[in-house]
Amino acid sequence: MNISIIKIGGNVIDYPEKLEEFLFLFSRFPGKKILVHGGGVLASKFGESLGVMPEMIDGRRITDKDTLDIVTMVYAGLINKQIVAKLQKLKQNALGMTGADGNLIQSKKRPVKKIDYGFVGDIKTINTDLLENLLDQDIIPVISAITHDKKGQLLNTNADGIASEMAVALSGKHRINLYYCFNKAGVLIDEKNDDSIIPLINDDIYQELKQENVIHSGMIPKLDNAFSALKKGVNLVWIGKAENLLLAAKGKVSGTMIESHKYDLY
Amino acid sequence: MNISIIKIGGNVIDYPEKLEEFLFLFSRFPGKKILVHGGGVLASKFGESLGVMPEMIDGRRITDKDTLDIVTMVYAGLINKQIVAKLQKLKQNALGMTGADGNLIQSKKRPVKKIDYGFVGDIKTINTDLLENLLDQDIIPVISAITHDKKGQLLNTNADGIASEMAVALSGKHRINLYYCFNKAGVLIDEKNDDSIIPLINDDIYQELKQENVIHSGMIPKLDNAFSALKKGVNLVWIGKAENLLLAAKGKVSGTMIESHKYDLY
Repeated sequence: MNISIIKIGGNVIDYPEKLEEFLFLFSRFPGKKILVHGGGVLASKFGESLGVMPEMIDGRRITDKDTLDIVTMVYAGLINKQIVAKLQKLKQNALGMTGADGNLIQSKKRPVKKIDYGFVGDIKTINTDLLENLLDQDIIPVISAITHDKKGQLLNTNADGIASEMAVALSGKHRINLYYCFNKAGVLIDEKNDDSIIPLINDDIYQELKQENVIHSGMIPKLDNAFSALKKGVNLVWIGKAENLLLAAKGKVSGTMIESHKYDLY
Repeated sequence: MNISIIKIGGNVIDYPEKLEEFLFLFSRFPGKKILVHGGGVLASKFGESLGVMPEMIDGRRITDKDTLDIVTMVYAGLINKQIVAKLQKLKQNALGMTGADGNLIQSKKRPVKKIDYGFVGDIKTINTDLLENLLDQDIIPVISAITHDKKGQLLNTNADGIASEMAVALSGKHRINLYYCFNKAGVLIDEKNDDSIIPLINDDIYQELKQENVIHSGMIPKLDNAFSALKKGVNLVWIGKAENLLLAAKGKVSGTMIESHKYDLY
């Protein structure tokens, strides 16, 4: 089947009115779909109220025991269930899950090397049978970025990674489109100008844009990740603003489409 | 099919070692099964750390907006996902849900009469198709006591009520046994003596024991509820200690069995 995987993060979740608007658009999004969400600033806020301060090393968050409890409560509890209830109102049969539920996503605690990230999981396997069964029943999986190691331990996991690993795992049998809702309108020629979207990138164009330094720093791992997913069988990857999601679904220019095939457009 | 619904509350959840022991016994419990859990004291503790004090009227908790957020985080997030991860370790394919997930339990906000209970839900409908589908796949639903009104609102709901309404809803097509894990060994002749269990109660015996004042006060609504479930088609209701659950599954005297049929035992 055709399946769309849509990932949202803090730039949608942290603003109630943006989340409402997104969920409305998501409800209008055609076809079989899966929503993957990260956490946003709410977990840090709750942690601070409870006296658990975010611990960062080299700009990365460390997930100690207390932080894991807080992200489990906020991501898998509050945010996930509020999204599910709001989608149910919109007549979308959403079902919220973590990676532990139905053994959906098994991961492995990241080994301690230079940095001990704590209870952070790197994805090992995705239970595609469960996803297929739910999608067959017209249920919409809503997945929070918590996984487990099947040894009883929950693990905090990167939501972008969940979306792309899930896309790759499902692409063996299905046509998968992956949509990343981002805080910018797409990949931009001028980062400060949302009108300078590059509408379409394939591998050749990507190499060119990197050489010309149009694409640099933080965008490179994102696009490397996107191309890796495409090479492993995902049909397309889109990066853009949540409010342009429906235009993207209709194939209109609305962000950056990343495709592995070659085009005659250029 | 034969389905067992098992309900646990604070007397199991509040003690990590008791919860571990219970989950081990639950994993050995034969046949198709559903776990329903309440919250325990953890939600109150977290609330207090966040400055949200439990508000009680006439001994009943009032669920205001902040309290609802906290119970959603603690019941549907932390407790539910920890239970699921621990069951997965025990090779039990658990899947955690609230009533909002897959529209499992639709409820209605309790109308304001003498007391405004706040965001508390009275159950309207149970989605038995979803439960049947999950059980068919050998998935074990693990249900936290949060429901929704299908208008976007989550609602705090009594876990005993969820267990019995679910038992009744499924009893139309299935043979349902309902197990309440309790802080006493069963219905007792002498409340202070756990050895004075009444092993079997049917309607006749119940009426007698009430007249003789052996059964009184808090036990009456519990048993009324049990008999109501039996009259609506549930096969049996058991009340006892979590640690005796496996004995109960084997039909051994281990708590109080409540059955609607008549017996020649007496």
